Amino acid sequence: MANSRSGDSVIARLVRVLATFDAEHTAQSPSEIARRADLPTSTAHRLITDLVESGLLERDEDGRARVGMRLWELATRGSLALGLRQAALPAMEKVQAALRQHTQLGVFDDDQVLFLERLSHPDAGANITRIAGRLPLHASSSGLVLLAAAPPEVLERVLAAPLQELAPGTLTDPEALRRKLAEVRRLGFAASPGSIESVSTGIAVPVRDHGAVVAALGVVLPRDGVDEQRAVAVLRAAAREIEETLTRSRSAFG
Amino acid sequence: MANSRSGDSVIARLVRVLATFDAEHTAQSPSEIARRADLPTSTAHRLITDLVESGLLERDEDGRARVGMRLWELATRGSLALGLRQAALPAMEKVQAALRQHTQLGVFDDDQVLFLERLSHPDAGANITRIAGRLPLHASSSGLVLLAAAPPEVLERVLAAPLQELAPGTLTDPEALRRKLAEVRRLGFAASPGSIESVSTGIAVPVRDHGAVVAALGVVLPRDGVDEQRAVAVLRAAAREIEETLTRSRSAFG
Repeated sequence: MANSRSGDSVIARLVRVLATFDAEHTAQSPSEIARRADLPTSTAHRLITDLVESGLLERDEDGRARVGMRLWELATRGSLALGLRQAALPAMEKVQAALRQHTQLGVFDDDQVLFLERLSHPDAGANITRIAGRLPLHASSSGLVLLAAAPPEVLERVLAAPLQELAPGTLTDPEALRRKLAEVRRLGFAASPGSIESVSTGIAVPVRDHGAVVAALGVVLPRDGVDEQRAVAVLRAAAREIEETLTRSRSAFG
Repeated sequence: MANSRSGDSVIARLVRVLATFDAEHTAQSPSEIARRADLPTSTAHRLITDLVESGLLERDEDGRARVGMRLWELATRGSLALGLRQAALPAMEKVQAALRQHTQLGVFDDDQVLFLERLSHPDAGANITRIAGRLPLHASSSGLVLLAAAPPEVLERVLAAPLQELAPGTLTDPEALRRKLAEVRRLGFAASPGSIESVSTGIAVPVRDHGAVVAALGVVLPRDGVDEQRAVAVLRAAAREIEETLTRSRSAFG
């Protein structure tokens, strides 16, 4: 890779460095970052030094780098993610109290579902979803809700790409997925039994702001003995509450 | 300002651009960003174009820039802020349910309190705190808790700087602040009546991880008729719960 010092490639390299951090990699040595970002060690070292100096990364006692509180602050305080999540949290807590399972809020981003919030219950089962984690649109109930509301060109792009199988229940046939999306539009919710983990079912409903779907509110339930109708009713009441909050605080999202 | 194209100044300019976004400025025109970041318009335009290309900023229909979901994702998913906040949220919900007021979690960062989480109750009064917002250490109960546990050199640095008066109750005399911090250490909590807003009292307790104070858990109560002892008891129970969660999930913060 060219060790260009031009502005845009610094930003591109910055993104590659930041992309190496996630829940499994919260503290990394410079050489680990260089390797995972596919950057020459000297380039990575220089960039990490600059990032530590500016507070975007922090160094721990062992010389490993972490995402800086300053970066989190700058990325959070003006973001739509915070506004939507703040509007949704009280209603999500009610869903969690009623269903005692994982409750999550996802948005459409870059042809995937990006999860802004997740509340878990001690009694709840396994759940692959993480805050600031992503899932394919076709494989999760939240993604199906978002895809069902997406413009036709987005749908065609998603259908043209390979539909990855995450579990035996994942819809990987484009025609089956089209039929499923028509059902989601008709019913106003998505249920995706076994599409991510064979033992669980995702159920999600749309959250609208002035008519447009801006998020999906979902729960992950054990597949056995799931009361789908009750879950949908609880989710719909919560979505309505979020929509009212969004309408009231609209200026904050303008 | 020199329009240098060197790497470190791109990062410095990036920080200046990102710092213009907050809850009051979620969407800004390029010229607004240039003005608020104190950058030449052409420099700001180029940098914004690069940032939009990389997904760190997004452009809305009116050509205004916003903090991108991608930036929020990269800054959040590996950050200690997320881990601490995830560990604290269930206990914070209990505090909020018990006291029905604002509940907040703050950490020490750059000689200030940085708030990672805030839960509000519909019945609660005004509160200046915001998620990803900051307050001076000496003026808030959370800050007093963090300052009381800070190394001596941090304390001396804070005491040597001007102690800004936010409200008539703010401690602005270094000797009075030293006495207050001794009291906080002795009592194991901080109460700061009227130090930020004359009508409210902040009460905060330390949250420890392996003995070291890693955060302050606080509430903001109306100053009249506040049951300080009950608030402290509720906060201490919640802090213990967070500490147990941190111990259990320690590997995640390693």
